[in-house]
Amino acid sequence: MTPQDLRIRRVAIDTWRENVAYLHRECPVVRASGFQALSKIMVHANGRTISAVLNVVDDERIVEACELGLSEDAFARIDVAEGHTARVTPSEPPASIGALHRKIAGERLTREDLFALIADVAQARYSKIELAAFVVATNGYDLDRDEVVHLTEAMIDAGRRLDWQRQVRGGPVVDKHCIGGIPGNRTSMVVVPIVTAHGMLCPKTSSRAITSPAGTADTMEMLANVELPFDRLAQIVRDTNGCLAWGGTADLSPADDILISVERPLAIDSPGQMVASILSKKIAAGSTHLVLDIPVGPTAKVRSMPGAQRLRKLFEYVAQHLGLHLEVVITDGTQPVGNGIGPVLEARDVMRVLRNDPQGPADLRDKSLRLAARVIEFDPDVRGGEGWRIARDILESGRALAQMEAIIDAQGRRTPAPVPGAITHEVTADQDGRVAAIDNLQLARIARLAGAPQVIGAGVDLLCKVGDAVRAGQPLYRIHASYSADLAFARDRAARDSGYRIAAEAHAG
Amino acid sequence: MTPQDLRIRRVAIDTWRENVAYLHRECPVVRASGFQALSKIMVHANGRTISAVLNVVDDERIVEACELGLSEDAFARIDVAEGHTARVTPSEPPASIGALHRKIAGERLTREDLFALIADVAQARYSKIELAAFVVATNGYDLDRDEVVHLTEAMIDAGRRLDWQRQVRGGPVVDKHCIGGIPGNRTSMVVVPIVTAHGMLCPKTSSRAITSPAGTADTMEMLANVELPFDRLAQIVRDTNGCLAWGGTADLSPADDILISVERPLAIDSPGQMVASILSKKIAAGSTHLVLDIPVGPTAKVRSMPGAQRLRKLFEYVAQHLGLHLEVVITDGTQPVGNGIGPVLEARDVMRVLRNDPQGPADLRDKSLRLAARVIEFDPDVRGGEGWRIARDILESGRALAQMEAIIDAQGRRTPAPVPGAITHEVTADQDGRVAAIDNLQLARIARLAGAPQVIGAGVDLLCKVGDAVRAGQPLYRIHASYSADLAFARDRAARDSGYRIAAEAHAG
Repeated sequence: MTPQDLRIRRVAIDTWRENVAYLHRECPVVRASGFQALSKIMVHANGRTISAVLNVVDDERIVEACELGLSEDAFARIDVAEGHTARVTPSEPPASIGALHRKIAGERLTREDLFALIADVAQARYSKIELAAFVVATNGYDLDRDEVVHLTEAMIDAGRRLDWQRQVRGGPVVDKHCIGGIPGNRTSMVVVPIVTAHGMLCPKTSSRAITSPAGTADTMEMLANVELPFDRLAQIVRDTNGCLAWGGTADLSPADDILISVERPLAIDSPGQMVASILSKKIAAGSTHLVLDIPVGPTAKVRSMPGAQRLRKLFEYVAQHLGLHLEVVITDGTQPVGNGIGPVLEARDVMRVLRNDPQGPADLRDKSLRLAARVIEFDPDVRGGEGWRIARDILESGRALAQMEAIIDAQGRRTPAPVPGAITHEVTADQDGRVAAIDNLQLARIARLAGAPQVIGAGVDLLCKVGDAVRAGQPLYRIHASYSADLAFARDRAARDSGYRIAAEAHAG
Repeated sequence: MTPQDLRIRRVAIDTWRENVAYLHRECPVVRASGFQALSKIMVHANGRTISAVLNVVDDERIVEACELGLSEDAFARIDVAEGHTARVTPSEPPASIGALHRKIAGERLTREDLFALIADVAQARYSKIELAAFVVATNGYDLDRDEVVHLTEAMIDAGRRLDWQRQVRGGPVVDKHCIGGIPGNRTSMVVVPIVTAHGMLCPKTSSRAITSPAGTADTMEMLANVELPFDRLAQIVRDTNGCLAWGGTADLSPADDILISVERPLAIDSPGQMVASILSKKIAAGSTHLVLDIPVGPTAKVRSMPGAQRLRKLFEYVAQHLGLHLEVVITDGTQPVGNGIGPVLEARDVMRVLRNDPQGPADLRDKSLRLAARVIEFDPDVRGGEGWRIARDILESGRALAQMEAIIDAQGRRTPAPVPGAITHEVTADQDGRVAAIDNLQLARIARLAGAPQVIGAGVDLLCKVGDAVRAGQPLYRIHASYSADLAFARDRAARDSGYRIAAEAHAG
């Protein structure tokens, strides 16, 4: 070992997809090279090089002067054993840093710029601060539509791709996706069993909750394993026609996963990033035909019909350039879909619909059938307008349920089935009248404070929806929690604003 | 202790002005509340509340399940002893988050918005990611000039203010500042002794190097203590008419210090932020009259004369609205000023000029006299045009040197005087000709790789300047380092690009 050599030590700190290196203040390299906290350094070990943000440490229990501490992400990425020697050098900025600065200055980026930038993002060469700069510089409609095409292509290029052409022999590989923002909107878990029972190939990958109380992956996880490696996922789709898996493990768009880790705390979800994120994952998953759900409502992601149309055109433009057949469906996003909000409660609603249980929420059933119908009409053998009847027959006959059970078994069934949180609190109407509006954002917030999605049984169960008549004191919804502190957080928030608006009826009696 | 109570533990990790909280993955609060890595939490202890970014830890040597680890910054800010109980709750976003999102969306912010935003920045309620979003959203000329006025006022309002009116009784309190970017440009250390020897009050506070090999504070620190608490700084100015101190300890514009911690790694230094940063610190330090140096050159911060004029107007507009008398001087920024680059080497140049040593660099002397002249002409008793002669007399008579020695003694003289790094390498001309250009950025980079400013004796000593005739093999500059690894980094960089351009003479004699 020369004086510049350091011993790698794993520091068990989860820095959420950022490489962090911990060096002791007395480490000769820190003293010699003038490294400062938060500057970036290059770490070299065993022929590999990664870049990392430096945190300077004054505690030898964390790292000693001759050690190089690596956060969980950095340790996984350099991929050598603890105790291995490493060297650090001053950081060279990522090759694409010039493109990032040009975008910050408001310039238009070329295809080459975006490919270089996204490759550097996927290789974790950017710090969180730099990623935040990229996210803000490409916010709103700051990326023009050709830039979004190139961003999408670059994201596909940075990851792995699935190919189903041996299975479908030129036929469609279908998918269905929603831009998000509506609590309880778990239509994918009804649509996938229906369309795969119809014989279509649907390799559905979903995200976990980003800012919501549950993503489709979180909800499906209440029933089955969703963390499927690339090869296993491919085998399940070949065996059952479909899957309902988390997209993160399949490495389909790793750059997108890294960008989302910054978009989430910033609560930024801009059109260009949304289009590139969704379409890159669909195309990487091998889909050829996609039905896209854009809900519109005062508390949805898209607030107005002109806004929805503008977003629709951007999706269509990018999809067309990438050879993806896209049908956009603009839907009612004025209130949550179904009754449950939170992983266990939403899984319950889905299974009730698939079992044709009368307790199954009618709005979730109707919306799922409508979307499944559009997917089924991608089948060249189905006449326009017949999709809805076919979808309904598959659902009512129990074939959709049987198909869902097959997918669950293929992915690995979760037993025992988890149950809703046992600690509950009911929020009641403060006057007689009709439910005039339900605030999606407020209900999502309350469900998150109750613990969702991390505490799987936590969430909110809606007991009435828009248009229902209520009496003062009647329960509007029930909060489920597993810990009393969580229930208190959620209950306090609901007491300040229930998220429901009750309108007194003008002509009573 | 209730189950929600945690014991505070100081985690000796320097996170560079960001509050980071470390909680063990098995901590009941993490499990119950669905906190995720990188989410923000509120920490409550002893009646105080701070917000912090969460890192989840899997190592009990760092934090145990019942402990709340706090990074150095967070620990200092919550200001209670280790072992004290604390609680954590889900983060409430800062009150000004709506204004941040409106700025990201491109809207114009009101005075109230900017006051709320900067107050939250100063209270460390924003994460690094959110600060990066603010820096990018206000980049370039994205802040209009009234927004810059309000940003400046808000920055002043968030810190402490010095008031010298009892000393000057309506007379000017003067200062001199450069926007930066030119290595070796240490004119302040010549100007302050001259103008304070003339009897003017000049409470000069400077920054440390942000992206450069030395700031004025770093260079002054080679001669004297620069970390002066607020009250001590005020006393020194009353005693000697001036000071040359680091601005950070005086708490004059704490929000600016926090924003700079993000601007530095992003290498963003936009006009609005620059104007607010400089003018807020000058006004908070009690200055009424300011000479501002804007160097222009192909490798300076400002590349063109129109760019300099646009920046000048913005400075003038904001200064006028805040009652600061401002004179802008646009100077030659085509090459470094003086010979030394790096704290010790620059301090040597300054003292040579003050001692009227023939080895003192003529360009540093001339520029300092020119700027001192402009400051002296703020004196109502000095006729226009007489400033230069007065400044030169003060310098040549030795009164400036005596005044500098007085300031050094008042701040606390550093002994022994540090010397340049002993390990050297000379970079030589590769052909006969004249020095046609010197790249400020490349020379700064080489000096930083050699270790400056952290390794105080490290840097670059220029042996010839633009216009000098050189022969092939003749040394252009000498790199000084204290560690051989640093010399190797700097030498490699210089071998790839020396930063000097030598033009063969067209009509050799």
